[in-house]
Amino acid sequence: MEASAHELFAALRDLSFDGVGITRESFGPGETAAHELVAQHARTAGLDVGRDRAGNLVVTLPGRAATEPFLATGSHLDSVPRGGNYDGAAGVIAGLLALASLKRDGIVPPRTVKLYALRGEESAWFGKSWIGAHALFGLLSESDLAQRRQDTGRPLSDYLGEIGADLDAIGARERLLDPASVAAFIEVHIEQGPVLEAKAIPLGVVTAIHGNLRHRRVQCRGEAAHAGATPRELRRDAVLALADLIMRIDAHWARWLEEGRRLVVTHGIIGTDASEHAISRIAGEAIMSVEIRAEDDATLHAFHDLVQREATAVAAARDVSFEFDAPIINPAAPMDARWRKRLSMVCDQAGIAHMSLPSGAGHDAAVFSQVGIPTAMLFIRNQAGSHNPRENMDMSDFVAATRVLREALLTGSVAAQ
Amino acid sequence: MEASAHELFAALRDLSFDGVGITRESFGPGETAAHELVAQHARTAGLDVGRDRAGNLVVTLPGRAATEPFLATGSHLDSVPRGGNYDGAAGVIAGLLALASLKRDGIVPPRTVKLYALRGEESAWFGKSWIGAHALFGLLSESDLAQRRQDTGRPLSDYLGEIGADLDAIGARERLLDPASVAAFIEVHIEQGPVLEAKAIPLGVVTAIHGNLRHRRVQCRGEAAHAGATPRELRRDAVLALADLIMRIDAHWARWLEEGRRLVVTHGIIGTDASEHAISRIAGEAIMSVEIRAEDDATLHAFHDLVQREATAVAAARDVSFEFDAPIINPAAPMDARWRKRLSMVCDQAGIAHMSLPSGAGHDAAVFSQVGIPTAMLFIRNQAGSHNPRENMDMSDFVAATRVLREALLTGSVAAQ
Repeated sequence: MEASAHELFAALRDLSFDGVGITRESFGPGETAAHELVAQHARTAGLDVGRDRAGNLVVTLPGRAATEPFLATGSHLDSVPRGGNYDGAAGVIAGLLALASLKRDGIVPPRTVKLYALRGEESAWFGKSWIGAHALFGLLSESDLAQRRQDTGRPLSDYLGEIGADLDAIGARERLLDPASVAAFIEVHIEQGPVLEAKAIPLGVVTAIHGNLRHRRVQCRGEAAHAGATPRELRRDAVLALADLIMRIDAHWARWLEEGRRLVVTHGIIGTDASEHAISRIAGEAIMSVEIRAEDDATLHAFHDLVQREATAVAAARDVSFEFDAPIINPAAPMDARWRKRLSMVCDQAGIAHMSLPSGAGHDAAVFSQVGIPTAMLFIRNQAGSHNPRENMDMSDFVAATRVLREALLTGSVAAQ
Repeated sequence: MEASAHELFAALRDLSFDGVGITRESFGPGETAAHELVAQHARTAGLDVGRDRAGNLVVTLPGRAATEPFLATGSHLDSVPRGGNYDGAAGVIAGLLALASLKRDGIVPPRTVKLYALRGEESAWFGKSWIGAHALFGLLSESDLAQRRQDTGRPLSDYLGEIGADLDAIGARERLLDPASVAAFIEVHIEQGPVLEAKAIPLGVVTAIHGNLRHRRVQCRGEAAHAGATPRELRRDAVLALADLIMRIDAHWARWLEEGRRLVVTHGIIGTDASEHAISRIAGEAIMSVEIRAEDDATLHAFHDLVQREATAVAAARDVSFEFDAPIINPAAPMDARWRKRLSMVCDQAGIAHMSLPSGAGHDAAVFSQVGIPTAMLFIRNQAGSHNPRENMDMSDFVAATRVLREALLTGSVAAQ
């Protein structure tokens, strides 16, 4: 299995190396070539290959009870520009090798098992994430379909049409796949953070995909003034007020973690206004972004309330004002407890070290969870993060994940009977 | 006197209003026209008018002892682009009206009194501040002379040549004026900050011109990472580290003020790198500026040391690094104690409310102090700050300052005998 994995990943790399990293454009030649590669290997393995009405690749290992809800696994094959070879692809290849292995061993599982290579997962191309999964469940809006690809300027609807997706049904927000027909969705993915690597544990069972709440722009307004001529008590310094708010938020975050609440808080962007800032000028204006990610929506909203209360307190204390733009909210997706347990048990039985951890990043699996399908995720340890050419994964960890996926799908299929 | 002041300021405004504010370019038509206006009024008042070898306008009221060290007053006539009418001009007009008033009253003071309208005070034009004063004392370097005016791109040396300054002597760093020949330099100036206005006091006696120490760029380096996938304990967040350092510095500043040390601390510029920052990305890099201004150099350097110690502490605590660019240092200029007392006494005798305060902003007077001339400054209350078109001054406050200047020059002249 490790040799097959090596071969598949090498072939994928060959068809999408851009000179710096891996580029497989959503709905573009890179993604399509990857889909064809997977389809070709699936056919060779004797699996059924088709496409759903959203243009996703579907590889099927038929079970004994063809009319019963099926088990699904999968992930995506597109990448960010100059990304790595494993983000998304690892989950599709793991599913492919798991199904091929079952087929090779002559196993006909009680329930049908399907592998989805979902289209357009990366928001880098159209702004919208998880396009193939969203399309499948009638979750693309008219404005989503009008989003233009950042490199070509052409709308998503054009691309969906080109790959043969049912644009009328998608535009009418039909459900192309009935959630009730899916017994479970299990996604294998590289961990995009450093937790497993730091703890020297190869696999992770995801507890929940964090929801997030973002303000792209929080503007602090004080008063610009001469730095030399304005004493402390007469200042309305926007930079100090912003730093104060950031540190108050940070202190709350630390306390919440101590209390066992799971969240991360990030200000990826701060700045004074380049058109008017100066070394000798007290800043009249400063901005920051705020992103909160939390395991459940209650935590998300409670911390958001706290951020706003602290902004009000800092505004009063420092005679400034804060203006928050409209928040963008993606709800949290809890993973199915039975499937989490099953994945952990399979790891234990195989003697593979594992741990539970939340997914701070979003994934296709969140969409399956959102429509009520029991959903789980298995993370593979990964070096050097994701969305960059240095992204890495030990092939032995990958094989371990594929074995766990195979076994979990099989025992899950039996249990579903 | 108030009518003359109104007339002079109105004439100045007429010749330098740019449609938005006041623009009198250093060594340009705006400044030169203002010099001519002052020269014209001085001649009309019966005062001697000339230029020194640095191209500054010098108006003289001869005293009885022509060979003894003389008393000097003055300020500048240039402005920042779109500035106000009073920054600099108030001090020159006050000197002009004081000398004209003595002349009109037939007073021949024991010592000669000279008014200097110093060229090129504002750093907005050539980067360099206090050009006319620096030139007078051989303090312009070759690189200063090569500085180009920001609007025209032509070097300072060209402009000095055009107004008839002795470029050879200035280039050779000769002292065009012997500091020993100047008994004192008294500068009237609008306060550029809000202190007098906030305290409802018309005049201020300056205790010292603050020195300053600046880092244009302090760079914090952490590690960029996925905001969703990186837990708190594995983050090396440059934004949090920067905010932490800013707040530590702020806390020290507050304590030092409580202990009676006089300084201001400003971070006019902060920012993440626009080429790589993102809402969902932990910032790997963030920058800030630091400016410290203090009444004496010991305070300046002690606080600078503290800033660097705190940066080291934050770097250790948050696993980041701080890199400071080379500091730019302007030493503090203490004002002459006898002249401060004299200005205060004259105010008291005239029943004019006044207070002592430091000057956070730099002034021509700092150069006279630097070469050992007993120097003092009198501030006039000012509304809406300086370096902007809303800059304002009550004409009654201005007349009070002019009366105090006249009386101080007279009693100073007598005392110097």
